[in-house]
Amino acid sequence: MNDYIAPGKDITFAINELAELNKISKLPGKEDATPDLIEAVIEEAARLANGVLSPHNKSGDEIGAKVVDKKVVPADGFADIYNAFREGGWPALPFGPERGGQGLPELVATAANEIWQAANMSFALCPMLTEGAAVAIDAHASEALKEIYLPKMISGEWTGTMNLTESQAGSDLAAVKTRAEPEGDHYLISGQKIFITWGDQDFTENIVHLVLARLPDAPQGIKGISLFIVPKYLVNDDGSLGERNDVYPVSVEHKLGIHASPTCIMSYGDNGGAIGYLVGEPHSGINCMFTMMNHARLAVGVQGLSISERAYQQALNYAKERTQGQALGQKGRVTIIHHPDVRRMLMLMKSGIEAMRGLCYVSAASLDYIHHAETDDIKAQHSERFALLTPVVKAWCTELAQELSSLGVQVHGGMGFIEETGAAQHFRDARITTIYEGTTGIQAQDLVGRKVIRDSGKAMKDLLEEMHQVGKEIVSLDNDNFVSFQSNYIKAVQTLEKATTWLLENYQSDANAPGSVAVNFMMLMGTVCGGWLMARAALIASAKIDTGADDVEFYKGKIVTARFYADHFLPRADAYLASVMAGSESIMALSNDQF
Amino acid sequence: MNDYIAPGKDITFAINELAELNKISKLPGKEDATPDLIEAVIEEAARLANGVLSPHNKSGDEIGAKVVDKKVVPADGFADIYNAFREGGWPALPFGPERGGQGLPELVATAANEIWQAANMSFALCPMLTEGAAVAIDAHASEALKEIYLPKMISGEWTGTMNLTESQAGSDLAAVKTRAEPEGDHYLISGQKIFITWGDQDFTENIVHLVLARLPDAPQGIKGISLFIVPKYLVNDDGSLGERNDVYPVSVEHKLGIHASPTCIMSYGDNGGAIGYLVGEPHSGINCMFTMMNHARLAVGVQGLSISERAYQQALNYAKERTQGQALGQKGRVTIIHHPDVRRMLMLMKSGIEAMRGLCYVSAASLDYIHHAETDDIKAQHSERFALLTPVVKAWCTELAQELSSLGVQVHGGMGFIEETGAAQHFRDARITTIYEGTTGIQAQDLVGRKVIRDSGKAMKDLLEEMHQVGKEIVSLDNDNFVSFQSNYIKAVQTLEKATTWLLENYQSDANAPGSVAVNFMMLMGTVCGGWLMARAALIASAKIDTGADDVEFYKGKIVTARFYADHFLPRADAYLASVMAGSESIMALSNDQF
Repeated sequence: MNDYIAPGKDITFAINELAELNKISKLPGKEDATPDLIEAVIEEAARLANGVLSPHNKSGDEIGAKVVDKKVVPADGFADIYNAFREGGWPALPFGPERGGQGLPELVATAANEIWQAANMSFALCPMLTEGAAVAIDAHASEALKEIYLPKMISGEWTGTMNLTESQAGSDLAAVKTRAEPEGDHYLISGQKIFITWGDQDFTENIVHLVLARLPDAPQGIKGISLFIVPKYLVNDDGSLGERNDVYPVSVEHKLGIHASPTCIMSYGDNGGAIGYLVGEPHSGINCMFTMMNHARLAVGVQGLSISERAYQQALNYAKERTQGQALGQKGRVTIIHHPDVRRMLMLMKSGIEAMRGLCYVSAASLDYIHHAETDDIKAQHSERFALLTPVVKAWCTELAQELSSLGVQVHGGMGFIEETGAAQHFRDARITTIYEGTTGIQAQDLVGRKVIRDSGKAMKDLLEEMHQVGKEIVSLDNDNFVSFQSNYIKAVQTLEKATTWLLENYQSDANAPGSVAVNFMMLMGTVCGGWLMARAALIASAKIDTGADDVEFYKGKIVTARFYADHFLPRADAYLASVMAGSESIMALSNDQF
Repeated sequence: MNDYIAPGKDITFAINELAELNKISKLPGKEDATPDLIEAVIEEAARLANGVLSPHNKSGDEIGAKVVDKKVVPADGFADIYNAFREGGWPALPFGPERGGQGLPELVATAANEIWQAANMSFALCPMLTEGAAVAIDAHASEALKEIYLPKMISGEWTGTMNLTESQAGSDLAAVKTRAEPEGDHYLISGQKIFITWGDQDFTENIVHLVLARLPDAPQGIKGISLFIVPKYLVNDDGSLGERNDVYPVSVEHKLGIHASPTCIMSYGDNGGAIGYLVGEPHSGINCMFTMMNHARLAVGVQGLSISERAYQQALNYAKERTQGQALGQKGRVTIIHHPDVRRMLMLMKSGIEAMRGLCYVSAASLDYIHHAETDDIKAQHSERFALLTPVVKAWCTELAQELSSLGVQVHGGMGFIEETGAAQHFRDARITTIYEGTTGIQAQDLVGRKVIRDSGKAMKDLLEEMHQVGKEIVSLDNDNFVSFQSNYIKAVQTLEKATTWLLENYQSDANAPGSVAVNFMMLMGTVCGGWLMARAALIASAKIDTGADDVEFYKGKIVTARFYADHFLPRADAYLASVMAGSESIMALSNDQF
């Protein structure tokens, strides 16, 4: 009982209603993205996920990946998954038709990503990173490089990787030491990279490594890093594959989770230097990297959503089957879903997931406006919004995934601790998401420093204004279902406003404040953002019911999960605010020796 | 870098100051328990833990236990650990001299248990369950049975187990099916038990299984269960070992954590029936079981403390060694302990651990008063207090351990996800603690139903009164360090009071309310109890500094961790209260099909 069935109705609701697909399909070039087409795309994705990806999730965990003779041997069945994925045309989903892509909205690609990550997170990392690498090449590489690499990556014939981390350079990329020596029209790359996801595999002919390295004349620190394409096999002028390049996987890590995703130590240049090609300008690697990273941060936030959904489905199935104890108003022994505390856990999962989905999809929709809106004004609005929300999507959704995947174990009782049950795998897999692509602390500092303090809170004020508008709509309703929203939501938005004011007023007088309060600020913001989208969902559902929509039970359910969110998630906002307003004092007071 | 060093100073502070050893050593029979002796005992325990138990913690995780030919083969080295543990006389620590015990306070046994569990949780489960079984035998068995079994268990020559769970009977023990047929002076036991911790091992000559089973004439449900002693080897009249009894381990589970603790499926009576001896009256097994369970619940709460301490030490060591990035006021690259967000995580761990330790030790001290106080009044007061606090110790400490052991991973960044680092083991090991010996939900319902509603809040009022007294002491201080206590602590105690009032006023009108609000009520109570003990610790430390005690830095540190607790843990109380006061409405509103 650990199948995954993509939740098509919930996904479609979030696409159509919260992220407003009808507006996106009015953008130039996106006219084909009609609700009918998108529903068909989601159905097709669900079919592949449910039938092909998901069945290898548990076996992949058990088998894992290994390195034999400097080659990664993926878990059994993963080559077949990849081939089915490629043949379905999925790698091409969001890319422009001019490069062989399908030109569908990022919103839809994000929904598809939710489905892949839930079905098989270890596998889905491979296309996720390929897409991120392709986006970076598309944004920064020369036309000549694009012509060689992009079509093959978009078709899925080749995969891509991101090579940032070195053992001394984790969150601190300024410490990157990998060297790039110019030689003719290319560079010779040498050094060792760690934590390289899908650094090697045997199911595509070639792999395109994007590598951060330092030129000989590079200034020290973060502004001396450049980005290079280093293909596993060199590409001849006619597009055929040439020699094996001097880059190899040394080993894969033995990890807590995502066992089937080979996390490689990669060695560049052991035999003279790996041939690489500069992407963008020298020393501008950090900007190119941010293109990849922002893309990947949204995608990792989605992983938080996905693994929570997977854990929820498994817990729900168990709760509907497992008989234990008695319940009020029920004869004899009952299935445990009847017990209020089990229901509380399932509701935390369900409503948390719906809030995350809303936030992820609305953020992804901003990407479509950024790329395709007709006016610079709208592009700028969405750039501002996407920049503000990205660290929240990444950090809040993944932190919430820790809580929810742990509840998934808890619902199972003792069986949750037994690996065969499968609940523990989701809990283990989830654990990486708050760490990679920038830890929660790094995201929170990005939010507080670059996204709130730097523009003196302007982007935040714009968002708060929208949140207040939703509050006004709710206050105007005379509906019992919105009572807790009328108090808790309005208060929570004010709480976020207070925290923002506090931050802007205190960051200069207390230089340790931004770093000290960042994570609580981010958690506060994520919680309130979730409330904003749950409030919107409830308003939409309420209107659907009022206007006689079919499937009233579905919309009533949306109102209940929203109400639960207002009752049980929004009150956390006060606790986060209190921690923020406590500042850095008691955090910084101990000497190192007093720890 | 995953050594464990027992934190002797913090432990001694909690024993002497918070749990007030000086009062316990005035109890009849406890006069030997002077601070000097106890400090020496703790030092000796620390030596064994640091030198013998802890070095096998990681290897035990890697090797695990297995069943070969119906025998459990423990991980390498575990027999040696057990022998050293037994030779040190540790199993005898809290038992009365009349049975060969050392007669030391339960308070001290709890401190020792903290050390064992932190050093090697998989191992420490073995003596922990033996002690629980011995306590139950001591409380309920006939003198004849006691004479046969107790001295060997107290000396550590034999170990003990608790056999409660069956596949259809987990939280719901009323569903136990294992049968006990009378035959002469004994019973023939047959059935299968699951999740039996240390159900078998090869390092003692005998194992004493305590088994819940049903007599032929037993009424249905929980009042038809009896408790039996079923030895692995029968015991002859002269005390020598006789035939192998008909009880065998079938297999061990493949678990998320505590790999070196063999979690057995035990089969009774495959060859005609395992010989067992009734403990206590027929059909009174559930009462006998509660003796074991209450003991084990305190001990599992301590595991939450222990595994958090272990995770903290590892994270702290890493934070002091790992160089990454730059920090305010520091030249060049710094160790990550300088970063405010890392410090925030370490402080959450450190102050959460100190609060848990206070709560566990103060609760354990109540056991000493229950058993040895000179007046029935004092015994009754402490019985009431211990009953009230036990579910909180068990559930809150283990829930907090989830958060803190996860932070332990997070402090390590990417290295935390790599199994070789060791942080992930603590995170995995911790995960069982909210499940076994009664899940968090079960504890919370015990608290709400049996400990608060049943006595109309009397025990809670007595506790709140003590908490208010501490508040008054704090308010009377003119000391900057107590400002956040003066607001947050006073408010948090009132919050617990409000939740109690709400519960007592609403449980009758809404029959689903107790089950729905129980976990939030328990978390609220745990958080406030932690605040109460941190406030006491700060008051004591402040007085020590004022009276010119040595080691001012240590006491100043106590004040900082207490202040951090007031700043960052106590504000959570409001969020829990809001969830409690939301009642069952949005938790119960969905139909099963709407999930």
